[in-house]
Amino acid sequence: MTIGVIGLGLIGGSMAIDLRSSKFADHFIGCDEVELNAETALKIGLVDEILPYDELIKKSDLIILSVPVSAALRMLSDILDKINDNQYVMDVCSTKEKLNDSVHYHPKRKNYIATHPMSGTEYCGPWAAVPNLFAGRAGIICNAEDSDFNAVELVRKLYDFLNMRVIYMRAAHHDVHTAYVSHISHIISFALALTVLDKEKNEKNIFDLASGGFASTARLAKSNANMWAPIFLQNKENVLSVLDSYMEKLQEFKNALVNSDERELHRLIDEANRIKRILR
Amino acid sequence: MTIGVIGLGLIGGSMAIDLRSSKFADHFIGCDEVELNAETALKIGLVDEILPYDELIKKSDLIILSVPVSAALRMLSDILDKINDNQYVMDVCSTKEKLNDSVHYHPKRKNYIATHPMSGTEYCGPWAAVPNLFAGRAGIICNAEDSDFNAVELVRKLYDFLNMRVIYMRAAHHDVHTAYVSHISHIISFALALTVLDKEKNEKNIFDLASGGFASTARLAKSNANMWAPIFLQNKENVLSVLDSYMEKLQEFKNALVNSDERELHRLIDEANRIKRILR
Repeated sequence: MTIGVIGLGLIGGSMAIDLRSSKFADHFIGCDEVELNAETALKIGLVDEILPYDELIKKSDLIILSVPVSAALRMLSDILDKINDNQYVMDVCSTKEKLNDSVHYHPKRKNYIATHPMSGTEYCGPWAAVPNLFAGRAGIICNAEDSDFNAVELVRKLYDFLNMRVIYMRAAHHDVHTAYVSHISHIISFALALTVLDKEKNEKNIFDLASGGFASTARLAKSNANMWAPIFLQNKENVLSVLDSYMEKLQEFKNALVNSDERELHRLIDEANRIKRILR
Repeated sequence: MTIGVIGLGLIGGSMAIDLRSSKFADHFIGCDEVELNAETALKIGLVDEILPYDELIKKSDLIILSVPVSAALRMLSDILDKINDNQYVMDVCSTKEKLNDSVHYHPKRKNYIATHPMSGTEYCGPWAAVPNLFAGRAGIICNAEDSDFNAVELVRKLYDFLNMRVIYMRAAHHDVHTAYVSHISHIISFALALTVLDKEKNEKNIFDLASGGFASTARLAKSNANMWAPIFLQNKENVLSVLDSYMEKLQEFKNALVNSDERELHRLIDEANRIKRILR
């Protein structure tokens, strides 16, 4: 099987690595708007050849669309226009509803599988690609009933080869949940970095004093604007709703502090500790 | 040398492990208000013997006070009352100014060294103690000029044996900086956990969808109320000031989102990315 990877970054590149080593496919074609990314991906062996966008589409059995969500929104219906009945395209984007809606009435809708492998790091580009990025994580397939049965089976098998747990979900639900468990985490991390950078004009202090706790909460602030700005905008309503709830919780902490209310601080922290049941 | 560890939790226990293996000291006495902690620390070999508080003080060359900051505030002057001129006591608390002020006029002030080893995990109790917790981290010594030269040298050497980088600092500065690089991280993590637990009544969704990003920003929400509520209260003014700045940054994100202002989102994220220069 030939896989075409459009967008040779962290996700597309890491998928190619594992799909090759697990022998899910034997030929990988890539393309990337940024020429340096394409060259690099070829040089470090993520793909076997680089072809222009149209040629990649023509020659691929399965196309993995791994570009920022704004670009995916532009490209998906165009790709569906160009493929034949035996070709499939899956996206790996972090928002699903708008993308899914954009091709809902496309005559080739059945050849598209809306998916989201829930993994990543704060790095980007082909050099960020790593083996085993997806193992043990959730591979979401959205609105599976709108896709061809064989197409869904193919992606289910692909996620199986990446050692992922497949979960089926409505696109709208996906976007609500990811606002909570992923998108908000990025906003709070960006805001933390901005706060600290603003106040600590002397960066040596941050470096010297930053403990593991700060590194952990600020890690996501290294994430890329090209990827994340479009995610926040495409999931705007959900993200705003979570952000409001989050700011209310901060306000509760603030009130407890202003009132030196130790009991209320204990209550808030004890309640937050329930996350232990869920997070390893 | 005999070291007495008051409070046999993550920090005291982890220090005992490395100070023994690096042969900084050869005898370790412990005590803990919670009998189970004391028994456990003895059983797993963090200390050689458990003694009552007063006896521990009498027999120790160096006392490590590793209890929550509220307890430290109660105990420090009492310990100074009881030691002789050749005994020293260091605390390892996350806030320094109030504690330092509390013994500023104590006749044995010179026998106390105000310190903060900047490391930790989200776990607590003697089982949480691990080797090598402090390696490469900053060991802060505050207001060193108020301590006996030999006492400061002893702690400098101790931190050296833990492979820490020693940094000297005013207690007041310490509390400002830690509000930024440590205390706020905990509040934003607690608030994130509360937000998600509130909204995701079905915890299976959190578990299924939580990616590494969420785990990383929510990790600190597992931290203990007995430790953290007193820290926030003792560093109330600084923490409130940081919290206000942080909430302003969140508001900037919110405004950009409400206005679908992609350019502003890019600006905010690009600026936050500057944290890359500082964080590994």
